[in-house]
Amino acid sequence: MDINSREHAKQQDEQDPLRHFRRQFIIPSQADLARKTLKHDTNHHNQNEESTYLCGNSLGLQPAHTRTYLERYLDTWASKGVYGHFKPIDDSNLAPWMNVDDDVVEDMAKIVGAKSSEVAIMQTLTMNLHLMMLAFFKPTKQRWKIILEGKAFPSDHYAVESQLRHHGLDVDESMILIEPPSKDNPILSTEHILSIIDEHASETALLLLPGVQFYTGQLFDMNSITAYAQSKGITVGWDLAHAVGNVPLQLHDWNVDFAVWCTYKYMNCGPGSIGGCFVHERHGRVSPRAVGADGEDPAEYRPRMAGWWGSSKSSRFAMTNRFEPIPGAAGFQISNPSVADITSVRASLDVFKQTSMEELRQKSLKLTQYLEDLLAGLTLEQENGSGACFSTITPADPAQRGAQLSVLLKPGLLDSVMDSLEEDGVVVDERRPDVIRIAPAPLYNSFMDVFNFVRAFRQACEKATAIS
Amino acid sequence: MDINSREHAKQQDEQDPLRHFRRQFIIPSQADLARKTLKHDTNHHNQNEESTYLCGNSLGLQPAHTRTYLERYLDTWASKGVYGHFKPIDDSNLAPWMNVDDDVVEDMAKIVGAKSSEVAIMQTLTMNLHLMMLAFFKPTKQRWKIILEGKAFPSDHYAVESQLRHHGLDVDESMILIEPPSKDNPILSTEHILSIIDEHASETALLLLPGVQFYTGQLFDMNSITAYAQSKGITVGWDLAHAVGNVPLQLHDWNVDFAVWCTYKYMNCGPGSIGGCFVHERHGRVSPRAVGADGEDPAEYRPRMAGWWGSSKSSRFAMTNRFEPIPGAAGFQISNPSVADITSVRASLDVFKQTSMEELRQKSLKLTQYLEDLLAGLTLEQENGSGACFSTITPADPAQRGAQLSVLLKPGLLDSVMDSLEEDGVVVDERRPDVIRIAPAPLYNSFMDVFNFVRAFRQACEKATAIS
Ligand SMILES: Cc1ncc(COP(=O)(O)O)c(C=O)c1O
Ligand SMILES: Cc1ncc(COP(=O)(O)O)c(C=O)c1O
Repeated sequence: MDINSREHAKQQDEQDPLRHFRRQFIIPSQADLARKTLKHDTNHHNQNEESTYLCGNSLGLQPAHTRTYLERYLDTWASKGVYGHFKPIDDSNLAPWMNVDDDVVEDMAKIVGAKSSEVAIMQTLTMNLHLMMLAFFKPTKQRWKIILEGKAFPSDHYAVESQLRHHGLDVDESMILIEPPSKDNPILSTEHILSIIDEHASETALLLLPGVQFYTGQLFDMNSITAYAQSKGITVGWDLAHAVGNVPLQLHDWNVDFAVWCTYKYMNCGPGSIGGCFVHERHGRVSPRAVGADGEDPAEYRPRMAGWWGSSKSSRFAMTNRFEPIPGAAGFQISNPSVADITSVRASLDVFKQTSMEELRQKSLKLTQYLEDLLAGLTLEQENGSGACFSTITPADPAQRGAQLSVLLKPGLLDSVMDSLEEDGVVVDERRPDVIRIAPAPLYNSFMDVFNFVRAFRQACEKATAIS
Repeated sequence: MDINSREHAKQQDEQDPLRHFRRQFIIPSQADLARKTLKHDTNHHNQNEESTYLCGNSLGLQPAHTRTYLERYLDTWASKGVYGHFKPIDDSNLAPWMNVDDDVVEDMAKIVGAKSSEVAIMQTLTMNLHLMMLAFFKPTKQRWKIILEGKAFPSDHYAVESQLRHHGLDVDESMILIEPPSKDNPILSTEHILSIIDEHASETALLLLPGVQFYTGQLFDMNSITAYAQSKGITVGWDLAHAVGNVPLQLHDWNVDFAVWCTYKYMNCGPGSIGGCFVHERHGRVSPRAVGADGEDPAEYRPRMAGWWGSSKSSRFAMTNRFEPIPGAAGFQISNPSVADITSVRASLDVFKQTSMEELRQKSLKLTQYLEDLLAGLTLEQENGSGACFSTITPADPAQRGAQLSVLLKPGLLDSVMDSLEEDGVVVDERRPDVIRIAPAPLYNSFMDVFNFVRAFRQACEKATAIS
C-alpha cells in the first residue's frame, strides 16, 4: 500500500498494539484550540474533530485520570485537613502526603532505568541541576572545568555559568562549550564529543549533556559518553528533559553520576510540574554513625545542600536538629513536595506502568520513521516543483534520535507555516528563527496524526512560498 | 455576659465584621474527619456538624474557590495544550502560564508589605532559603558566622549547617545558636537576641530568624532586630513560614534583606504548595549593560544561582544564552513554576484581597485573647481542683505573638489529650513530647471554635489526668 495514503496510516493504527492508550488522554479538539474561551460554543460544527497535537516535547497532553486524581486530592484536603499527611484513606489510591514522594519513585525509576532508591521526585529541573552541581561540582586547582554544549538549553547554560562564578572561576576559561564542527550541521557526533573531552580531560571536573537535544532532537550515546568521561576522572550529569518518557534509559547500568528531568513534556504531568533527580547509588550511601570514645560520630555521606525532607522521617519532627540523611536520592530532598504536583505524577505513572519504555520505543521508532518517510516524499515533491522548503536536522539514524524531528525551514517561512498549521488544527512547536519541532508521542499520537501533519504541512509550505 | 458562656462566643461571632469569610472555606465536618474514607456514609447522623479546626499553622483549610480554579486550570491544559502558555482566555480569570508568576506577586506583596518587584512566588521554603544564602552569604575571613536560634525549625538548621560546610567552615564555631537564657522559658527577648548579636557582631555575616517561632508562637520584633543587626554590618533574613498571612509585615519598610515563606499554612494553598521569596529592592537592581570600547559589557547585578525563569522574558527562547536578570526578586527565579500550585495561590489570594492584614490582625488579636482568657479560667479551675494540667508558653503580650498559642502539658498527658480532642472533632497540632499548638486563623475560625476547643480540652485534661 502507498505509504502516502490515508489508508496506510489507518492500517498502521489498527495494527498498533498500543493504540488504546490514546483513549487515556484528553486530545484537544480543533474547536477547543480555535476558540478564545474554555466554554463550548454550541453554534460551531465539527466541534469534536480532534486536533493533531505533536507537541509533547514541549507540553504533554493531560491523562484522563489526572482530573479524577486531583479531585481526590482536593477531597482529601477538604475533608481531612492536616490528617491527610498521615492517615491512609480506604477508598483512595493516593498515599498519605508524608509518603507521596516515596509512592511515585518506584514507577519513575522504571522509566529511567534506576533503582527506586536512586530516584527522587522533587523541586524543578534547573533547581535540581543546581543542587546536583552543589553536591558534585567541587572544583580544585587541578580540575575545575565544566564541559557542556555550546547550544545547551539556556537554563542549563545559565546554571553552569553561575556555578562557576559562585566558585570564583573565570567563566571564559572554565566553561567548555562543545560547538558542532561545521556551522551547517548542528549534530554533535560521539567522536567529536569525546575529542573535546580529550582536549580538556585532565582539567575537567564535570560533563553535562542532554540525553536528547532540545533543538535538534539528537539522542546522545549516554552509555559510551559516560563511560569515556568517567575513565578520564570526570563526573557525568545528564539533563533528561527531552529524554524521559521518550527513550529507554538505563541510568543505573550506565553508571551515570546524576541526572535531572522535568515531568511536563513526555511525562504528561502538566505545566511546570515537579521535577526528578537521579543520584547513582554509589553516591547516595550513608555510613552508619561510628560510636567512638567521645560518643557518636556523625554519619558519613556526600555533602549536599540539606533540608528536613532529606532527613530520616523519624528525625523530621524531633527537636534535636540532627540531620540524618535518607540513603539514596531521597536524602537530597529539601522541602515537603507539592502534593498537587505529585498527584499529577501519580496519574501519569499509572498510564506508563501499563506498558514499558521498550514497547513505547518500538512504536516511537515506527511513528517517527513514518514521519521521516512522508517528509522525504514531500521534499522530493517540492524539489520537483518550486524547490524544497525545508530540511530535517535531526539525525537520520533512528538510534540517534527520540520521537522528535526538527525541521529547518527556508528563511522567512516560519510565521506563515505556523499560522497555516494552527488554522488546520495542527500543533507543533517553533524555535525562531526557522525551526519547527514535530514530536509524535508514542503514548497518545497515532499514525493518522503524522499523516494529518504532513498533509497540513504540505499546504502550509505552498502557501508560505506563494506569499514570500 | 460571662465570657465562659456559649452565648458570649456566639455574640462575638455575630459582631465579627469578618465572619462571612468562613463561608469561603471548606470546613471538614466531624464525620469527614472520623471516617476512613472520602465517600459519605449516609448511615451516620450529624454528618454536617463542623469540626473545630485550629490547625492553620500547620495546614490551612481549602478555600472554596480552589476547586473551581484548579478545574479551570485542568480545562485549559486539556483543551488548549501548549497554547495555554501564551494565549489569554476570555472566560478564565487565570493568566496565561508564562505570566502566572507575575499575576500573583502584587497581591502577595501586599500580604508581606513589599513592593511587587520585591516578591517572587517560586520553589519551596527551604529551597528559597538556600538560594538566598547562596546569593547573600559570602563568608570572608572577617565575617563568616551565621546566627540563628538553637531551636530553629530543623530544616533551617540543616540548611544553615550545610551552607557553612559548603564554604568549608567549621560548624561548631561558625553557627551561633541563640539559646534561651533559662531552660524553663523558651522565649527569646529582643534584648537577649541583641546581646548575642553584640557578642558576635564583627564576625557575623548573616542573621536568620523566624518571624513567628513555630514552637512557641513568639512573634519577633523584626523591625528592631533587623535594624540593629544591619547597623553592625550583618545581613538579615527571615523565615516567615508562620508569619505570612498571620501577622502584618512591612518587609520593605523594615529594610529586611531577604525573606522566605511557604503557602500551605495561613496562606491556605494546600500541602507542599509553592513557596515565596522577598528580596529587598536594593539587592535586586540590575544596572544597564555598559557599552564599552569592546562592545557591550555584561549588566551588573548581585550574583546568584541562575535559571532561565530569572532571565528576561525575551531572552528565554532566544538562542543566545545570555543571562539577562529580571530586576527584583523575579530575577532570582530558576525554573518555570508549577501552574497547579500557582493556581491555588491565585485562589487563596482572591480571598485575602477582600480584606487586609490589618483587619485580619484586629480579629486575630481578639480571637487569641479570647482563647487565652478561657485557658486562664481553665487553669484557675484546675488549680482549685486536682492541679493545673498545662501552662501556656507563648508570650502573654499580644504584640509578641500571632494567632497561635502553644500549651505545655504536664508530662505523660499528650497522647490521651490528643485522642480525646480528636474524638470530639477538634484538630490542633502536637509537638512531642508535651506541646500542643492551637491556632485560630482569623480568616475562617470563629469565637465558637475557640469556645468548643476549650470545652473539649477541659474534658480531655480531666480524662488524661484520671488515667495517668
Ligand atoms: C518555620 C519553618 N521553616 C521551614 C519549614 C520547612 O518548609 P519546607 O518543607 O516548605 O521547606 C517549615 C515547615 O513547616 C517551617 O514551619
Ligand atoms: C533541555 C531543557 N533543560 C532545562 C529546561 C528548564 O526547565 P525548568 O524550567 O523546569 O527548570 C528545559 C525546559 O523546557 C529544557 O527543555
